Amino acid sequence: MKILVAGSGAMGSTFGHVLHKGGHDVTLCDKWDENVRVTNSRGLVITDVDKVENSPLKMYYPHQVQGEFDLVLFFTKSMQLEAMIQDVKHLVTENTKVLCLLNGLGHLQTLQKYFDDKHILMGVTVCTAKLLGPGEFLLSAHSNTEVRNIDPSQEAACREVVKAFNDSGMPMTYSEDIAYSTWRKACLNGMTNSVCALLDVNMRMQGQMDQMRDTVKQIVSEFAAAAALEGVNFDVEQFTEWSMQFLQPSFAGIDHYPSMWQDLVANKRATEIDYLNGYVARKLKEAGQWAPYCELITRFIHGKEKALGIPYTFVQ
Amino acid sequence: MKILVAGSGAMGSTFGHVLHKGGHDVTLCDKWDENVRVTNSRGLVITDVDKVENSPLKMYYPHQVQGEFDLVLFFTKSMQLEAMIQDVKHLVTENTKVLCLLNGLGHLQTLQKYFDDKHILMGVTVCTAKLLGPGEFLLSAHSNTEVRNIDPSQEAACREVVKAFNDSGMPMTYSEDIAYSTWRKACLNGMTNSVCALLDVNMRMQGQMDQMRDTVKQIVSEFAAAAALEGVNFDVEQFTEWSMQFLQPSFAGIDHYPSMWQDLVANKRATEIDYLNGYVARKLKEAGQWAPYCELITRFIHGKEKALGIPYTFVQ
Repeated sequence: MKILVAGSGAMGSTFGHVLHKGGHDVTLCDKWDENVRVTNSRGLVITDVDKVENSPLKMYYPHQVQGEFDLVLFFTKSMQLEAMIQDVKHLVTENTKVLCLLNGLGHLQTLQKYFDDKHILMGVTVCTAKLLGPGEFLLSAHSNTEVRNIDPSQEAACREVVKAFNDSGMPMTYSEDIAYSTWRKACLNGMTNSVCALLDVNMRMQGQMDQMRDTVKQIVSEFAAAAALEGVNFDVEQFTEWSMQFLQPSFAGIDHYPSMWQDLVANKRATEIDYLNGYVARKLKEAGQWAPYCELITRFIHGKEKALGIPYTFVQ
Repeated sequence: MKILVAGSGAMGSTFGHVLHKGGHDVTLCDKWDENVRVTNSRGLVITDVDKVENSPLKMYYPHQVQGEFDLVLFFTKSMQLEAMIQDVKHLVTENTKVLCLLNGLGHLQTLQKYFDDKHILMGVTVCTAKLLGPGEFLLSAHSNTEVRNIDPSQEAACREVVKAFNDSGMPMTYSEDIAYSTWRKACLNGMTNSVCALLDVNMRMQGQMDQMRDTVKQIVSEFAAAAALEGVNFDVEQFTEWSMQFLQPSFAGIDHYPSMWQDLVANKRATEIDYLNGYVARKLKEAGQWAPYCELITRFIHGKEKALGIPYTFVQ
């Protein structure tokens, strides 16, 4: 399969590397200058779980990419998706599928502005990867990714992608309900990533805070209300119970600092808050409802970005 | 006037020092071991605005204090008030007045558990003082303090206290409406102290954050709703406008970090959040209403206290 990875940071580069090892024709592109420069001069270094590997893959700027692709894999940060689509949309031709594996909410609507539904595959991955430096990334585990076509007629094409990933040792399943899975992951991120980033704590420490179950439940209820507006339903009580497990020492005993903490605290980079809690706050406000916790968390996260001198956009 | 200062940190020690210089018989007591020890060994050092002065005042533990007092000046941290009252209440006799100058809400109710209204004077000060170290404190300015008797029959006695302070060069006025003034100061603290502490920013930086006027307005509206339950009324729009001035560079250009930031970030001490935003959250909850911003801010401040290993109590 001829695959273009559009956005080759930690997730994109490691996925691209594994797919390349699986025999696919992979092209990486990215817009982070240092990443492109270091990868092309010193070479891409991927730690594939526990093995440090040198990848022969080159890194291009989007405008340098030419040719026909079977699959364009979008793996930018949320706020960079639309600009990346504009850069590569001319490469999406009749038989090209685009697969969106970004975290967060609202991405399908962004894709639909540029592509017909028959091109679009939406996915959710539980893989995590880490930036070690430009051109140097770590994939934590080959965990599952689920994916589904948006146009019902494209199931066979989607299942081909599923097979291609699985054949490369990157587990992928055909999703029963990708909208539900997307909201579930976003809600989990929204109840822990943003809180850990704001308070500069790990998930275990978050779980030990007073009234945290009530706080999580309120955040979950706001996500559930916004999800319901898009026809996705989940039980607040049940989801709160499930979410709280991730904050228990048995799960979080490894002192995991989630990705938004990595962005804001460790790397002083803009967060994806507008596509998590911020999305929920916007959606409910548009519908004449109110998500006070998500709203305040979003404002505070942007407040920290400003205080830290991080360039950001506040999607309002 | 024979005055006992019950709680001799930055505010209590500096007020005690100025009153002593004004000719009053001042006794300081405190429960912070190092403060008592250093004051009695090296002597109390007060920077009275711009002049460093050695005070001859000794520092006692509450249980060591004996005698009769005209005035007991309570100047503990909010969470220490009740324990201090229990330590010194036997010193409050027929003609003793107790004057409460603590920041925050709910202190009158605490005093009323132990003292008849005719003893109680409530005050609000705009003075600020700073801990430089045990036995070493800075009074920023001789700013105004307003005060009023709770029992209407005690106006003359209250005016005697007002005169005593003024005669010592510590400006004091007889308040028109001390409940209103207490709520106004608490609301100002609740919209900036807790936010600056949580986000580790100064007031100027807070003022530059996106949607801060909306955030302040929501906090103010929650304070106003709780105040209304106690018969105190203020206009949300007008008060928001007034509050926002303090976050403008013209006012906050000196990069002022408010007291809760000093406690939480600089000194890693427990905050008074339960007597500001936390009080509002509790009061509205008891009344079947909801203060989501104050509630979440209170939980997050306690979360930071826990994460920083600061011993605290969460008043629920």
